[in-house]
Amino acid sequence: MKRDSVKIGVIGLGTVGGGVVSALRRNRAEVRARCGVDVEVSRVADLDRSRLQGIRLPDRSLTQDYKDVLNDPDVRVVVELVGGTGVARKVVLGALGAGKHVVTANKALLASSWAEIFALAHKNGRGVGFEASVMAGVPIIHTLEVGLAGNKIRSIHGILNGTSNFVLTRMDNRGVEMDRAIEEARKRGLCEADHSLDTEGHDAQQKLSILASIALGKWLPPDDIAREGIGHVEKQDLSEAREQYGYALRPLAIYKNIGGRIEARVHPTFIALDHPLAGIENEFNAALIQADTAGPVTIAGKGAGEKPAASGVISDIISLARAISERGDQGIVVPRPPDGRRIRITPLAEVESKYYLRFSVVDRPGVLSFISGALGKHGVSIATCHQRGRSESGTVSIFMTTHHARDGALRKALAAIDRRAAIVKRSTVAIRIEE
Amino acid sequence: MKRDSVKIGVIGLGTVGGGVVSALRRNRAEVRARCGVDVEVSRVADLDRSRLQGIRLPDRSLTQDYKDVLNDPDVRVVVELVGGTGVARKVVLGALGAGKHVVTANKALLASSWAEIFALAHKNGRGVGFEASVMAGVPIIHTLEVGLAGNKIRSIHGILNGTSNFVLTRMDNRGVEMDRAIEEARKRGLCEADHSLDTEGHDAQQKLSILASIALGKWLPPDDIAREGIGHVEKQDLSEAREQYGYALRPLAIYKNIGGRIEARVHPTFIALDHPLAGIENEFNAALIQADTAGPVTIAGKGAGEKPAASGVISDIISLARAISERGDQGIVVPRPPDGRRIRITPLAEVESKYYLRFSVVDRPGVLSFISGALGKHGVSIATCHQRGRSESGTVSIFMTTHHARDGALRKALAAIDRRAAIVKRSTVAIRIEE
Repeated sequence: MKRDSVKIGVIGLGTVGGGVVSALRRNRAEVRARCGVDVEVSRVADLDRSRLQGIRLPDRSLTQDYKDVLNDPDVRVVVELVGGTGVARKVVLGALGAGKHVVTANKALLASSWAEIFALAHKNGRGVGFEASVMAGVPIIHTLEVGLAGNKIRSIHGILNGTSNFVLTRMDNRGVEMDRAIEEARKRGLCEADHSLDTEGHDAQQKLSILASIALGKWLPPDDIAREGIGHVEKQDLSEAREQYGYALRPLAIYKNIGGRIEARVHPTFIALDHPLAGIENEFNAALIQADTAGPVTIAGKGAGEKPAASGVISDIISLARAISERGDQGIVVPRPPDGRRIRITPLAEVESKYYLRFSVVDRPGVLSFISGALGKHGVSIATCHQRGRSESGTVSIFMTTHHARDGALRKALAAIDRRAAIVKRSTVAIRIEE
Repeated sequence: MKRDSVKIGVIGLGTVGGGVVSALRRNRAEVRARCGVDVEVSRVADLDRSRLQGIRLPDRSLTQDYKDVLNDPDVRVVVELVGGTGVARKVVLGALGAGKHVVTANKALLASSWAEIFALAHKNGRGVGFEASVMAGVPIIHTLEVGLAGNKIRSIHGILNGTSNFVLTRMDNRGVEMDRAIEEARKRGLCEADHSLDTEGHDAQQKLSILASIALGKWLPPDDIAREGIGHVEKQDLSEAREQYGYALRPLAIYKNIGGRIEARVHPTFIALDHPLAGIENEFNAALIQADTAGPVTIAGKGAGEKPAASGVISDIISLARAISERGDQGIVVPRPPDGRRIRITPLAEVESKYYLRFSVVDRPGVLSFISGALGKHGVSIATCHQRGRSESGTVSIFMTTHHARDGALRKALAAIDRRAAIVKRSTVAIRIEE
């Protein structure tokens, strides 16, 4: 049965919500051509009356109570752009409960309530589009869910947080320290007053939770993902690694499925300068997916911003509207419902990696012997080692790279080394190397 | 209505066809999880009896006559992997005519029969999956068709032919001439005995026809796309451009929609070393899509090979099987039927570009004045100029870059210059620069 229009309701009229409404109006002909039907924004809700008045819609379409949208029998798709995990969760579950399809850009909600949302969506046969939740308008969700369907996903290496990537590449390209790079990010509107969601890796952790859950077909909760921020990195780490080893530092979110052994972690990571992700600079995002049949697939673009996010939301609205117009409500593409079994993530202590190490030590005989002895005692094998000449303070930097070592063993070795206050002047910096 | 299995027929059991059948068998559990239904290869056809016997299927499933597959009422999806535009066309149109969905990797057929195929698919409400036709397993088709739905596509810059890219990047990285690079490509199985389909740009022309037709929503026939091979490039062009201007040469397929003014062309192109496509080396493929709302999106990976192609085919089979199992045959995602109007492509002579030029001339006073005079007379403005010292032969190379110039004007100027045999010793090499 063909319908003349599919009516949607938008809840939350911030910059993305406003952008979605105006882009649907501006590109109405294109949208109709894609869907075979008009997409009509018939209801919008926002607590803020002034935002409602900014939308060019008849008064009867405007409401301050989101429940009016959920209770409107004409609304087939609810677009949740409230954000957060409080009201937004009620909106999403309420809409699915009322038999509506849902589009959301809400990474925090999806990551924290994945099992609950998709179990309800599956039970009620309703679709949930969430393209904009990761990498905004760059279609990473469709790529994993549809384009690479039938592949086993062996790994995902993602630069999923634009702010952290801006800060690290800025430090590297301009030779500035982190504070200065964060200040520049702030001036460009790339980061909030409190930047810790970005620089501490929480944002990337939520996004990796979503990507890994699709790849696995099971929920991988964000709290199960090991997380390390970029705060301990100094500009000398970037310059030494580039000059000595040909490495660039990127804030990576890493998922691996090694024959059923699952790793998931977020941390700054050195990669070779010719690695596909080394060319991703500033606020750009990218993901390198290793698929068993397709091989390596990289997808990159603007991972944030109002317009890119609106693009992701609109692509979901179009997919749903097209399906509704052609088939009615049944059988929208829904991620597989998680099977409820808990996934065992390999504990970080058991994860193996190569490491870059920077020791800040006094310059005197026996220091190198002490360090290499402590590493060797814990089974950590040194690949390269060099020292930078004495600084004014009498402290020197010793740089090392290791062969593959277990994280737990390395941490024990470093703890033993850092405990020797007569030799070690500052905490040792350890950064993983990925090949 | 849920079905227990979706039956498919595979016509053409070459390496890709065999790979599809065995991957569907190997990943049966994953496929079932994605589709909610088993995908069963119930019929296979190939003229070659030995290929049929290599497939582990009961005898009643094997046939040498593709019509047996089209006439089998149980077969819902026909996978055409015959190749070429003869029998393959009969297979695809015959399958759609018989009410079956189609999956094909056949770029030549799609590019040449786009309007015919999609008009019939639309009329009969049947789906055509063709993810593997461009960039094999890298989901560029889904990205354009679904992931970026609702965007206006402003431009596509693609490295769509792996052989040409291998040859050019090999010349650049190893400092070898083209013959040697082609020989290396052949040794790696990257090119046919007759490599002209690749190096003359025919392959990229067909692929760009497909991508541009999706972006436009109208058929852009391959013959309307201006095409230039890589044959005139020498290693000195690569080294000069890298050292003097910081450029890398890539075999680009370019589509632009500048407010309705359409450009489509395939030619070797200089791009800056920090351009997103400059990092794509050897046989890798990539596309940079400028979307009006999502911004720039790059997608890259292995654009050829049996396994990547099988991945693309399987992702289409899964999409169709999932839709069939959940909704019956209606409403599979079908590209918009072309509206029949002819698109006016901007003639190459009217296309503006910057150029790199290499003149092979005698070393004597007045030569530079003659060249610059001839360029100026045709309105071509010089941006940079330098000369390399006298060679043993008495011929020197003059290298120039131009500001934006119309192709027609530039060609007239070069024809006038090259006509002067007393000064110009070899045809002038002109290579476009894209920013």
